[in-house]
Order: sequence, then C-alpha cells, then structure tokens
Amino acid sequence: MRRKEFELMDAAETGQFLQEMTFGVLGTIHEDGWPELTPLNFVYFNDYIYFHGSVAGRKIKNIKANQKVTFSVAKEYSIIPSYFTDPKLACPATAFFKSVIIKGEAELLTDLEEKAAALGAFMRKLQPEGGYAPIDPADPDYTGQLKSTSVVRITVRELSAKYKFGQNKKAPEFEHIQEQLVQRNTELDAQTIAMMEAFCPHHQKKDDNQA
Amino acid sequence: MRRKEFELMDAAETGQFLQEMTFGVLGTIHEDGWPELTPLNFVYFNDYIYFHGSVAGRKIKNIKANQKVTFSVAKEYSIIPSYFTDPKLACPATAFFKSVIIKGEAELLTDLEEKAAALGAFMRKLQPEGGYAPIDPADPDYTGQLKSTSVVRITVRELSAKYKFGQNKKAPEFEHIQEQLVQRNTELDAQTIAMMEAFCPHHQKKDDNQA
Repeated sequence: MRRKEFELMDAAETGQFLQEMTFGVLGTIHEDGWPELTPLNFVYFNDYIYFHGSVAGRKIKNIKANQKVTFSVAKEYSIIPSYFTDPKLACPATAFFKSVIIKGEAELLTDLEEKAAALGAFMRKLQPEGGYAPIDPADPDYTGQLKSTSVVRITVRELSAKYKFGQNKKAPEFEHIQEQLVQRNTELDAQTIAMMEAFCPHHQKKDDNQA
Repeated sequence: MRRKEFELMDAAETGQFLQEMTFGVLGTIHEDGWPELTPLNFVYFNDYIYFHGSVAGRKIKNIKANQKVTFSVAKEYSIIPSYFTDPKLACPATAFFKSVIIKGEAELLTDLEEKAAALGAFMRKLQPEGGYAPIDPADPDYTGQLKSTSVVRITVRELSAKYKFGQNKKAPEFEHIQEQLVQRNTELDAQTIAMMEAFCPHHQKKDDNQA
C-alpha cells in the first residue's frame, strides 16, 4: 500500500535519486499477457527516461505492440529487524528504501540527432569521466552504430516517489531504531541514518527545539 | 536481447542468488492496462516465490484480477566504461550484472498454517539472526496478524537466469577488462572479478593451461 506519509520526495530529490541510480527495471506488456521485466541502465534527461537496446530485443518488440510501460528505480537501504522495536513478534520487520515508479508511453526514436543527444546524456551520467569521442551522427564511426541501436524515450504520465525511513514511527521508536542502526553500523546503515535525519519530522522538530 | 551465451546459471546458482538478494520487483497488470511495478522483499522457498503485503494494497488488488505476474531480481556489478576496450567510441560501454526473471501465477494464501510457514521462511532469510518468537497461528499474538496480512505465492512457470560478465569477449579483451577492474578496484569490482573468474570460459582454459 502506498501510504501518504511515505510520499515525500520533491522533484529535485527525485531527479537526484534518478541521477544517482544507474539501473532500473522496465515493465512492458508481452503479447502472452504477462508483464515483461527488463533490468537496464537509463538516464532521466529533460523529464524523459531514455534507454537503449538491441533492435531485435524482446522489450523493443513489446513496445512496438504496446506503448504502455512502467519503470521502477529502487534502492534498499537497511533491513530493520523486528527486534529493533518488538521483543517478541516478527511482524515489525521491514526495510527502509527509496523508490520511484514511472508510468508512461514509450516510443522509439528515429531521428539520429535525437538518438545521439539521448545517448550523450546517458554517457555523461554513466561514464562521467569521459574517455570517448562525442556521439555525433556526422562521425562515420558513429553513423552506423546510431542506426543499428534502438533508443527509447518514455514520456512520463505519472511519477510516484516513495521514501520509507520510519516517518510513520512515533519519536521514541524512531530514535530507538536510529540508535540500533548506529550500533549495527554497516555502510548502508550510515546512509540510512542520514536519510532518517534528512526526511523525518521528529528529527526536524528535535533540531528546532535545540536551536 | 537475451543472448544464449549469457544464460549460464544452473539451478543451484540461481537459488543461491535468490537467497542472497533481499528484494526484487514484482510486475502485475493494472486494470488501466499498464504494468504495475512494486519493489518488495521476498523469499524463494520450495521452488515458489513468496512475499507479503497489505490486504488493501494495489498489487494484491491486481493479483486478484489477474494472476499473471513477473518477478525480477537483479544485481548490477561493475559499470564497464567504453575506454576499457575502445579508445574512441562510446558504444562498448556496458554493465556486468546478474538477473533472474520469473514468470508465474500468483495466488493469495488463505490457510493460516501455510501463511505462517511462508513467513517463517521469509524471516529466516531476512533476519537469520532470529530474535522473534516462531510464527505460529496458535499463538494468539500472531493469529490476528496472520489473518490481516496477505501472503502471496508465485508458482514459477518460466525462470530465466542471466549472467553478464564478459563471456562474449575474446580472451585478450576479457583479460584487459579484468586488468582495468583490478586497477579501478572498487568493492563491487572485486566481486565482478570473482564472477568473471567463476563463469568465464577463457579463465577456465587459462587454468587448464597453467596446470
């Protein structure tokens, strides 16, 4: 259930998360009636999602038949064991995470300049250190490659961003979870604690009181 | 495109990967015709995928209307920059990863004993250190919780496991990538190198020659 209190990311935070995350999962509809899922690298650029693939690939075939696609980008932070908050029951066990789910329409780009611009943004994200010639349709080393690569653009119809970092917990429970994470102290726990501090109402209030 | 040379995992390796990975993405079909994607924690147990959710949740509603679901579990290892193999073109840029895609039929469990068994397996996976009372429908602290939680079982119809660790590369290129990863030396690069060694034909051959 997507509960209201977990839908907290603003557009800038969503954009930053989509920039940090290198891959997501594309959902298309297969002709057999099943959803088809494909993990892939992507870029979020000019409010579109772009990815590329083989002209002969199954996802491209699905998109040609049905433009309705969904794209999911998720990062799991910390697993929160039940005993952080309940000495007996397993039920409170959960995971803290960020996720962005996008529903949209996918289309294959045909214009080589547009393809090159999208792949340029893709490379700037995934290979920011450079080390390649600019992707230019006029460069004969690129022309054939651009023609033989499918580049897909998803127009975003609905974007839902969900953070779950304990915002639904009352202050004492929230702080208790934080203390346990400090003790457990994995690399992801440190990131989780930072997110709890950045997004949680109790923490903000605490800061206000201290000021 | 799911190329044959990347489909290398055997059943034991697939099981191990599904045990290591704490979350996946569930694809269901929404009544609006779009795929619905939901990242969630899961367990692969007795050849079924199990997960739980709120009775009122959207994925549960979708499953009641349409049992056809797909489940994706993916781990990205190293981004392989284009300049590892090509001094000019961006095209060879890629990512090494493991992914398992399962197509199946989902059903909601109704029997409390079955629900408890599935949630028990779920907890053993995600909270192996214990710290909770066994999930038992006869325990009055659990009875109501078990009734109010939806537990879903996916019967696997098709499982496709894909590893991409450079198996399609010729030996010199493969070894060159490996050397560059050793130099870059991130935590994931070390894992990638181990996977390249475990799965790649050239490496096996090299070992044979040295023996």
